[in-house]
Amino acid sequence: MQDMTTTQTPAAQPRLERPAPDFTALLSDRARLMKASTIRELLKLTQQPDIINFGGGLPAPELFPLDDIGRAASAALERYGPAAVQYGTTEGHLPLREWIAAQTPGLTPAHVQITTGSQQALDLLGKILINEGDSVLVEAPTYLGALQSFQPYGPQYLEMPTDDHGIDVDALEELLRAQRAQGRMPKLMYTIPNFQNPTGRTLSLERRRRLVELSGEYGVLVIEDDPYGKLRFVGEELPSLYSLSLERCGNPDLSHVIYCSSFSKTLVPGLRDAWVQAAAPITDKLVQAKQGADLHTPTLTQMIVAELVQDVLPRQIERVRVAYGERAALMLAGLREHFPQGVQFTEPEGGMFLWVTLPEGLDTAALLPRAVENRVAYVPGTPFYAQGGGANTMRLSYSNATPAQIEAGIAALGATLRSAL
Amino acid sequence: MQDMTTTQTPAAQPRLERPAPDFTALLSDRARLMKASTIRELLKLTQQPDIINFGGGLPAPELFPLDDIGRAASAALERYGPAAVQYGTTEGHLPLREWIAAQTPGLTPAHVQITTGSQQALDLLGKILINEGDSVLVEAPTYLGALQSFQPYGPQYLEMPTDDHGIDVDALEELLRAQRAQGRMPKLMYTIPNFQNPTGRTLSLERRRRLVELSGEYGVLVIEDDPYGKLRFVGEELPSLYSLSLERCGNPDLSHVIYCSSFSKTLVPGLRDAWVQAAAPITDKLVQAKQGADLHTPTLTQMIVAELVQDVLPRQIERVRVAYGERAALMLAGLREHFPQGVQFTEPEGGMFLWVTLPEGLDTAALLPRAVENRVAYVPGTPFYAQGGGANTMRLSYSNATPAQIEAGIAALGATLRSAL
Repeated sequence: MQDMTTTQTPAAQPRLERPAPDFTALLSDRARLMKASTIRELLKLTQQPDIINFGGGLPAPELFPLDDIGRAASAALERYGPAAVQYGTTEGHLPLREWIAAQTPGLTPAHVQITTGSQQALDLLGKILINEGDSVLVEAPTYLGALQSFQPYGPQYLEMPTDDHGIDVDALEELLRAQRAQGRMPKLMYTIPNFQNPTGRTLSLERRRRLVELSGEYGVLVIEDDPYGKLRFVGEELPSLYSLSLERCGNPDLSHVIYCSSFSKTLVPGLRDAWVQAAAPITDKLVQAKQGADLHTPTLTQMIVAELVQDVLPRQIERVRVAYGERAALMLAGLREHFPQGVQFTEPEGGMFLWVTLPEGLDTAALLPRAVENRVAYVPGTPFYAQGGGANTMRLSYSNATPAQIEAGIAALGATLRSAL
Repeated sequence: MQDMTTTQTPAAQPRLERPAPDFTALLSDRARLMKASTIRELLKLTQQPDIINFGGGLPAPELFPLDDIGRAASAALERYGPAAVQYGTTEGHLPLREWIAAQTPGLTPAHVQITTGSQQALDLLGKILINEGDSVLVEAPTYLGALQSFQPYGPQYLEMPTDDHGIDVDALEELLRAQRAQGRMPKLMYTIPNFQNPTGRTLSLERRRRLVELSGEYGVLVIEDDPYGKLRFVGEELPSLYSLSLERCGNPDLSHVIYCSSFSKTLVPGLRDAWVQAAAPITDKLVQAKQGADLHTPTLTQMIVAELVQDVLPRQIERVRVAYGERAALMLAGLREHFPQGVQFTEPEGGMFLWVTLPEGLDTAALLPRAVENRVAYVPGTPFYAQGGGANTMRLSYSNATPAQIEAGIAALGATLRSAL
């Protein structure tokens, strides 16, 4: 036996002149803070074709303006020739930055930095702002992708309590006062005021005003993430924190608010075109960070978006708003009909998500396999909390499901919950 | 006067309820390590239309296969429908990863990560590998963009001496031995073996073999950056460090070499499609880092490249090789004719750059304004040195200049140098 093993070894496995590299030991401490997205891992389990999946955060692909995108690609190649696929400026395609700046009085292209999706905006802002150990204020719950972007830079998260009208600003003021008394002022706040991911909640106007005041009083920078703001299907549009801040300070270079938005939810996500608008000292540093990160966002995809902002984008926003409004209403009707007593849910005025809270003691992660048996899936809520908790919560997305899927899926999920209670 | 000033102030400048934010104080320590690219700043000065600019590192736009790209965009939208502009996987478009993996025996798509340009590959590798204070080996001189990507992660650079055949491997071995004796083993080496940026030099086969041995013996990871490898116009193709490493260790998951390449120089740069191939523990961590950095590279641009790799890419490589070969030969002939005695220059076998060394005591940064007066520009060499030096060197690019521009520009640059000597 010993001899046979010895003889076979070289054939079965090439003789190594050196040991296998210990890759784990070679990783940075930063890399050890990174984790695979629990949601992405989980979605892999639920992506069998016959499962109705309310878990993903995908826009409705059947609404994408494919013909317009094809025409815009041809138009950009025609209009710009080789420049459409040559290296471009780090700041981004100037006509696109000009269009974005023109949406806000007083803004110039110098205040606008194009990013490769909003995810890159969050990564670059984390990179230029967060020192290891810095306190960062986040909603509880908050967007998981922001936590993922910030995580490698070593923040300490401070959770801001929220209710049906968004961040509880009184509790926030308490928190800020207590932190200041301890000499541990947070440098940064991250918030999604419109149709928040994951809860679908919207920050009220009164609270927006107070939040902007607090950011100035306490010297806290605010990252306002607004991918969904244009997708309102109930009620009146509210001013952004950014515009309220400009009203107060009168000059984009004096604002504590850094505004991020994207064409991913209004147009299409796969072109990866998004932007940051902020005071010039912030955008100047973002340019340097982006030079090192990817030099620039692809030229052609920026030009495609620039071809579409005038005519196609407004039509597309209208189309998406109407469709998501119908789907949200249908899902809410289903929740009222099929979900058992004691289950609570938010009623979003726009965007893609709503948030379900089960009675205490139930665990949505533990329930998921039973839901999948019933051919329906969702995302358990815990990963959206920076400091854990929320075991009895879940996020449902209505954006990427047909009316028939919403009716059947919510009925199946209701049955799953009733059997669990 | 005092009264007038007081009266005018509110109109000229809105009254602030709070002081202007001190953005500088709010930046991370990391942000303070970032600098604007000296080259980009400098190129702005030299971008008047009548200046012959050998400074940029741009591919020749008149060679771009624009019609093929337009057709590929239409084909991708036709073939994949909404999926061409929907969110995609972080790892990248599978058919593209499969094509890349198929170029190297034994490689699978699990070893391939698509990145938003090679610049992102360098940023993500820096992020997952470099701890503050880690020693990183770089050529002297080296690619400025790599220094920019790594810089925010706080490396200490160790310069590897180079000569006309690339890294001096004997000197490197001395350096590694000395570092080991001091208990300060570098974790990482960054190198461009083919037609290096900025020098145009190529690492000899014998040295490649020794470099791969040393990386194994000393446990140093090697980032092999190879954007130009396919653009050889003189001599025979040499095996990559990566392929030599696979020969030695027999398994992609045991290799110390991390290989980066790109479609930017072979096809077009503005689509921002590049890749890393490495051991699975490295690509697994890259996926996590990229999730936080930009979720994924744009779907459509990856699909465009995937449509072109079979037929258009080989034709395009041939076209670019021939053109750059002619331009390099023309520039070398001009250097021999017009440059004064005592000026040395490299003779590249491929790629886009060559490197000029003036007699000691001359300063190419100080000479640049005189060259610009003569309507010609180049990049001074100092920014390519991690630790400074090289004041008498410059980089010239022949890729983005017509034959007539090369002849006139080199004559003008020769006149500038002769008048300086």
